[in-house]
Amino acid sequence: MFHIVKNELATFEEELYSVIYSPISLLEDVGDHLQQAGGKRLRPALYLICAKSCTNKAALMPMATAIEMLHMATLVHDDVIDNAATRRGISTANIRWGNHVAVLAGDYLFAKAFSSIANHVNCSMLQVLTDVIGSLCEGEIEQFKYCFNPAVTEEQYLRRIAKKTADLIAASCELGGISAGFKDEEVAALKRYGYCIGLAFQITDDLLDITASAVQVGKPVGNDLGQGIVTMPAIYALQNSAHKAELAEIIDKPEISAEEIQRGLAIINECGAVEYSCRQVERYLEEAKSVLPACLSPEVKETLINIAEYIGRRDY
Amino acid sequence: MFHIVKNELATFEEELYSVIYSPISLLEDVGDHLQQAGGKRLRPALYLICAKSCTNKAALMPMATAIEMLHMATLVHDDVIDNAATRRGISTANIRWGNHVAVLAGDYLFAKAFSSIANHVNCSMLQVLTDVIGSLCEGEIEQFKYCFNPAVTEEQYLRRIAKKTADLIAASCELGGISAGFKDEEVAALKRYGYCIGLAFQITDDLLDITASAVQVGKPVGNDLGQGIVTMPAIYALQNSAHKAELAEIIDKPEISAEEIQRGLAIINECGAVEYSCRQVERYLEEAKSVLPACLSPEVKETLINIAEYIGRRDY
Repeated sequence: MFHIVKNELATFEEELYSVIYSPISLLEDVGDHLQQAGGKRLRPALYLICAKSCTNKAALMPMATAIEMLHMATLVHDDVIDNAATRRGISTANIRWGNHVAVLAGDYLFAKAFSSIANHVNCSMLQVLTDVIGSLCEGEIEQFKYCFNPAVTEEQYLRRIAKKTADLIAASCELGGISAGFKDEEVAALKRYGYCIGLAFQITDDLLDITASAVQVGKPVGNDLGQGIVTMPAIYALQNSAHKAELAEIIDKPEISAEEIQRGLAIINECGAVEYSCRQVERYLEEAKSVLPACLSPEVKETLINIAEYIGRRDY
Repeated sequence: MFHIVKNELATFEEELYSVIYSPISLLEDVGDHLQQAGGKRLRPALYLICAKSCTNKAALMPMATAIEMLHMATLVHDDVIDNAATRRGISTANIRWGNHVAVLAGDYLFAKAFSSIANHVNCSMLQVLTDVIGSLCEGEIEQFKYCFNPAVTEEQYLRRIAKKTADLIAASCELGGISAGFKDEEVAALKRYGYCIGLAFQITDDLLDITASAVQVGKPVGNDLGQGIVTMPAIYALQNSAHKAELAEIIDKPEISAEEIQRGLAIINECGAVEYSCRQVERYLEEAKSVLPACLSPEVKETLINIAEYIGRRDY
């Protein structure tokens, strides 16, 4: 899917490895662990794709690594916050080394991310990144505020996942557009593309927690419900299911048993909540594809459309 | 002590408050809490004192707030890491709101710190700050590596506290010198001053954990020993006390009882370890006073000397 930036991504992996390296062996282990646990590199790939027309590829690397390190830092801290034991099927840093090392490893990644770009980008690009971290923190805080609360609205949910996920993906595309030297309105269009696929990505992620099996997603299913996190399908069911009162009662409890999670999942699955959420994903992906600016080369445009379509088909 | 920058510090407090403010009420509470729990503002004061000859005071505020927010962020995360219940006599953020909020509040402060300076400082100043955060993380990681280890050397201890404390204080002075427009060697001298008083400050802090009462320091005494953190007086006692084998045995245990802490403190107190550590503090403070560059105004120089002398007299 990212073949048009294959070479750039190979350089990126080398850069990432060299930047994560720390003279302190414990942090180095954590870095290795994170590198191996690394995902699809969606964010740096989007940055590099949007910046494809920039001829000085080496100049793109500090920002590409900074974006991925910020993402990794938030994952490590999220796992501490959620007390998560596995991510993508492997043990999380907090389980392997304890909360203290995980907190520090996240801080270290934050520092390295900013250090990576300190000498290479202009202030407006730096501001985009710092604003995004503020958003990420606010999104996580909102997640707590809305926990175990059956009265959460779809609007509150969308605002929360925008901060948690879509804003960083939007920023990756926006920064790519800036690096490519596009005009302000073209950069804004790329940012909107990123925002829409970001929302679609997170709604899909939340859907998978309800529909997929534990083997597919690499973490237990019904995990969100068990933690009191109310996602789009649950919000739909709370408004439209014949058993909405029963579901509200389950979510309202500070502790939800395994049987209650299974019953909650069944209520959500049988009222059309999954189909409704899939339609919303489709709607965001359609908007994403429709806003792509005319300045993009055909091959970049095709790649961004493919990425949008891939997000809609994602089943793990 | 900071009277020559009294007006700047008043503006700084207003700026800090406005930057910490978050639209998310929970984070706002945390910000208020941190503001109240705020210490002596040593780091921004040093920055402002070293930059005293800069006529554009408003231009100094973003960096002054960034420095203090970085310091606050590390305090919040340190309290999570150490599982501390009180700091300066009041409840820590992790105790009041839980680890998750404390981790996020720290991240938020990091983001705001960088956001505060993104549009206002040059890249080399940004690099100084990002390098310091890397150091802070490495220092905390080293603290874990050396925990419950009676074989830690004074050299390892000094390297660890340099990273944990002295580097940020050195950077505050260094950045002040850069803002004042001093020459490279003058800036380097201010950095060395900050480094020396930073080491003296941390050694004193570690001493107070051994010599002061809980009421004076606002946290339990013998806290370090209980957590297996081996500081300068303990290292001295491990090499020079008649009861060094007994002390090594106490420190070597992963769990140290209250009686063992008291016995450990007694061994440290009776072998001259406190006096030795005080002499080291004096030595660093003498060096700090001796390296001050000639470019400083008499009033700035006098203030920096007073600060060094105050650190030597600190008893809380």
